[in-house]
Amino acid sequence: MDTDPKNTPPPTTLEVFSSADGSIRESEGDETHYTISTTDTSNTPVTPRTLEIHRVCLPPHRPTSQKLKHRLSEIFFPDDPLRKFKNQTLHGKFFLGLYSLFSIFKWLPHYSFALFRSDLVAGLTIASLAIPQGISYAKLANLPPIIGLYSSFVPPLIYAALGSSRHMGIGPVSISSLVMGTMLSEAVSPINEPHLYLQLAYTATLFAGLFQASWGLFRLGFFIDFLSKPTLVGFMAGAAIIVSLQQLKGLLGISHFTAKMQIVPVMSSVFHQTDEIGNLPDGVNPPSANMLYFHGPHLGLAIKTGLVTGLLSLTEGIAVGRTFASIENYKVNGNKEMLAIGLMNMAGSCSSCYVTTGSFSRSAVNYNAGAKTALSNVVMAAAVLVTLLFLMPLFHYTPNVTLAAIIIAAVIGLIDYNEAIKLWRVDKLDFLSCVCSFFGVIFISVQMGLAIAVGVSVLKIVLHVTRPNTMELGKIPGTQIYQCPARYKDATRVPSFLILAIEAPIYFANSTYLQERILRWIRDAEDRIQSNEESTLRCIILEMTAVSAIDTSGIDAILELKKKLSQRSLQLVLVNPVDHVTEKLQLSKALDLFNTNGLYLTVAEAVAGISSTWKEEP
Amino acid sequence: MDTDPKNTPPPTTLEVFSSADGSIRESEGDETHYTISTTDTSNTPVTPRTLEIHRVCLPPHRPTSQKLKHRLSEIFFPDDPLRKFKNQTLHGKFFLGLYSLFSIFKWLPHYSFALFRSDLVAGLTIASLAIPQGISYAKLANLPPIIGLYSSFVPPLIYAALGSSRHMGIGPVSISSLVMGTMLSEAVSPINEPHLYLQLAYTATLFAGLFQASWGLFRLGFFIDFLSKPTLVGFMAGAAIIVSLQQLKGLLGISHFTAKMQIVPVMSSVFHQTDEIGNLPDGVNPPSANMLYFHGPHLGLAIKTGLVTGLLSLTEGIAVGRTFASIENYKVNGNKEMLAIGLMNMAGSCSSCYVTTGSFSRSAVNYNAGAKTALSNVVMAAAVLVTLLFLMPLFHYTPNVTLAAIIIAAVIGLIDYNEAIKLWRVDKLDFLSCVCSFFGVIFISVQMGLAIAVGVSVLKIVLHVTRPNTMELGKIPGTQIYQCPARYKDATRVPSFLILAIEAPIYFANSTYLQERILRWIRDAEDRIQSNEESTLRCIILEMTAVSAIDTSGIDAILELKKKLSQRSLQLVLVNPVDHVTEKLQLSKALDLFNTNGLYLTVAEAVAGISSTWKEEP
Repeated sequence: MDTDPKNTPPPTTLEVFSSADGSIRESEGDETHYTISTTDTSNTPVTPRTLEIHRVCLPPHRPTSQKLKHRLSEIFFPDDPLRKFKNQTLHGKFFLGLYSLFSIFKWLPHYSFALFRSDLVAGLTIASLAIPQGISYAKLANLPPIIGLYSSFVPPLIYAALGSSRHMGIGPVSISSLVMGTMLSEAVSPINEPHLYLQLAYTATLFAGLFQASWGLFRLGFFIDFLSKPTLVGFMAGAAIIVSLQQLKGLLGISHFTAKMQIVPVMSSVFHQTDEIGNLPDGVNPPSANMLYFHGPHLGLAIKTGLVTGLLSLTEGIAVGRTFASIENYKVNGNKEMLAIGLMNMAGSCSSCYVTTGSFSRSAVNYNAGAKTALSNVVMAAAVLVTLLFLMPLFHYTPNVTLAAIIIAAVIGLIDYNEAIKLWRVDKLDFLSCVCSFFGVIFISVQMGLAIAVGVSVLKIVLHVTRPNTMELGKIPGTQIYQCPARYKDATRVPSFLILAIEAPIYFANSTYLQERILRWIRDAEDRIQSNEESTLRCIILEMTAVSAIDTSGIDAILELKKKLSQRSLQLVLVNPVDHVTEKLQLSKALDLFNTNGLYLTVAEAVAGISSTWKEEP
Repeated sequence: MDTDPKNTPPPTTLEVFSSADGSIRESEGDETHYTISTTDTSNTPVTPRTLEIHRVCLPPHRPTSQKLKHRLSEIFFPDDPLRKFKNQTLHGKFFLGLYSLFSIFKWLPHYSFALFRSDLVAGLTIASLAIPQGISYAKLANLPPIIGLYSSFVPPLIYAALGSSRHMGIGPVSISSLVMGTMLSEAVSPINEPHLYLQLAYTATLFAGLFQASWGLFRLGFFIDFLSKPTLVGFMAGAAIIVSLQQLKGLLGISHFTAKMQIVPVMSSVFHQTDEIGNLPDGVNPPSANMLYFHGPHLGLAIKTGLVTGLLSLTEGIAVGRTFASIENYKVNGNKEMLAIGLMNMAGSCSSCYVTTGSFSRSAVNYNAGAKTALSNVVMAAAVLVTLLFLMPLFHYTPNVTLAAIIIAAVIGLIDYNEAIKLWRVDKLDFLSCVCSFFGVIFISVQMGLAIAVGVSVLKIVLHVTRPNTMELGKIPGTQIYQCPARYKDATRVPSFLILAIEAPIYFANSTYLQERILRWIRDAEDRIQSNEESTLRCIILEMTAVSAIDTSGIDAILELKKKLSQRSLQLVLVNPVDHVTEKLQLSKALDLFNTNGLYLTVAEAVAGISSTWKEEP
């Protein structure tokens, strides 16, 4: 028996007539040609057409190593980053590499005074936002306010050299400040052990940077895709509520605030803290590499905090970068941005900065103020430098109420009702992961809230695979189109056939379910046929276009199904299995069982082909 | 603008001619009819055909509650268990319910002497296996050998009344015995605290039964699908090696042996130990309900052991049930089997039995010995009873070496090289989860080995969703079929179109990737067009048949892609979105953007429809 599908025979030819009944009849005098008549609603004359039966081909053979290479390159290099290095000399490759790393080389050579004027205005505008924000966010992280200013000086300079976004405003952001404050102060009191706390903050920042840079370097950026937007909507709303509640003490002047809150009231009162720090110190960022903490009981905490804040700040930064790149139609490279943000945080941890990233609010202001290149970050850094050197005494008199109000105003905007309502309307499971992360953050903890929300998101994927949709198809008269009759009223069942579309990969997690569900479809169809006295069911067609993968359990399920159906004299036909699936079916020798008469390219051809074999029977 | 797709207009009609060139030309004098000429390889005469453009319909509207109900019924009741209760009186329903619970009612009324003769032979045969197996497996669980015999008496009787499999041989099995022995003896020594150890074993058995019965009752049987066959192949091979090593003590006559499961401590123990097995007591199962342990420091361990052994024994039992039902073509109901096995273990825990299930080896012997109904289990129980009452003194002299040899012979058969080789050949990721569970069990622990293997399996699903396949399609000349040119050499690209099939649901986890990947396809296509001087790219068609679901992130990605393409004067067209996807696109108002000219039922219609609009342009 010739079972090699590569040895493709010429297509069998069937003539198709359009006429008024649904029966199949043999055309006179030719044993290999059959006519299929279809009910045609368009009232065209009966015209003979030719329907060829095409053999399902195997995909071209590739060795395992090549498949693995292809798969890995799709996982890690979907953007084909080495494309531009092709056909270059070693010298050219070196400069291209330098260009890739330092985005500043891309825009600096073409920089003009017109661009500078725009960037200057934008830079000064974001500096006016950056200074109070820096102070407030540092307070969220239970850090001295000056750290917030330091963090608006060094990191923006580094980003300006490395980063590929033209509109990103760099600085500390609320979420990671809040998370750092919460996580660190659960173990170390910023009041009783301020030095250790600061050490841990810098160390966490270093690890955040290390994680970010290595994710970028090893191109693991797809991790952050798991923090889906619905998750973040819930997370930010929960975080905003926690922060706002925490700031009540500032607004109301309460000095003994409850310790039961998520955010431990480390600064027992804002007045107290202002008195304790006294004059805000002035001068540029002092080095802090000597304060990094690499051994001792809290190292694990610092690494964990670095991981979580690194992940969160990266998510915000990448999202911000992508948003403005999309508005202005340029490209930011996710993995490269990660490297830039990571290096900037690593440098920050050695110069008295804590975790920074591209901030939503700052970038929006930057963009609206007309920023054209990353130079606006340099302008902002310069403005912050002037503040650090000469204007710090002024901030001594910033009232706590003002700071609390700035923080509340900033974070309350993070609560996005409308998005939550949209999630509810469009996708209940997305809404669920939003709600889970919201309540998780409010009632359990920031990390648990995130973990639960990611868990719900993954569960959604797994659930979808575990219980895939199956759908019966009918023929739309006058066409070769098969669709769901519940949706397309025209579509009608083909007598003696049960045509099922399977809408998921067939995996260990659903192979048993799918097998049982298909058997139930058959049972239902047989019941209906019996009660309506239709013609007996003879063939089950599985439309496999949407079965994007199969594993060994799935193959076993298909084989078992075929065996069960054979015992009931029912034929099983597979239609249009995709590359991977065909390949696996062949590797497992399952294809041999279908090869002669159980594998078709389209449902229409399967119906025509199978019907013709019935005619051949005596 | 009429954007309501339910208000379906009559299909637009396009006339199709078969001729030799691939160009599209307007037919004379009629503005709404266009002719599309296709290169036809079948040498048929040029025949006008009619290609209708069908509007993509919305699925019928269903309220959320109904959708939720449908979804939940698909998750929990895919087999439609209440089907037979329809149209029954209350009295009828009661008896049907009783029949469903006690499968014995199904076969006992029709029982005959011929059947009994078969069952008697089979029952006596499996008893001869059950007695030495019971003793050996009890030793695996570090329990007194007599418990193994007790466990072959009560549970088979209960299963005979409740269970739906006709060939399942009930008794203790190697994996759960081994796991129970390992998990319990890590905390409690069976030698120093034999009473406490026995208490924990019974309690774990009770919880195993409780878990099993409640999974059956709440129809959560799909949990066990996550222990895929590759995982179990690796797990069993690992467990078999560990057990065989453990039995070295029996073979070598060592008495102070490690309770640890890992390979290193076992090997080191082989070199230090002496002989000891006490008198075997006789008599039927004493009640053990008073020995159940519901408080104290080890309750958590008992529950955990119950969970793991319950899960494992259920997996084996269900797999055994399904295997023989498939051979003999009858149906075992997964959820009902769980309830039966669960109740049998709960009863067992109160009558001095430990965890039992349907055993592979025992069922195979049962089937081959000609068993016809579950009565063979009753015969076996009777034989075990006789042994317990009269023959126990004989077993006093069973040498350790014999028992060890029986165990090694039993478990070594669990190592399935051939299956592992098949996994490697067919599916590398399946092989990986097999290898992970093998090494996890050998070098870490039984639970961790299982957890790692399940993790790898879930990762496989997630990875597949995270990096889905995209594929460029070309037209097979003379047909309306679009397929991958790499696989179907006939298939050729349609000029000015880029047709991409997306082979996965579009989720938060892949929406960014897909967007970038599609943009890269476009970039590659434009490069190719430029170098080959083909006609300019004007339209991107996404074939969505395999996109079985979409979430809000996916919708955002589609919208963003459409926006980006618009900016580059490229049209985006969706082809055949499935029910759920169409519904979500409509709910999020994304459909409105595609409704007028961006949504088609088939690729062929999309190509024809879009081409016709280009002709209309001046």
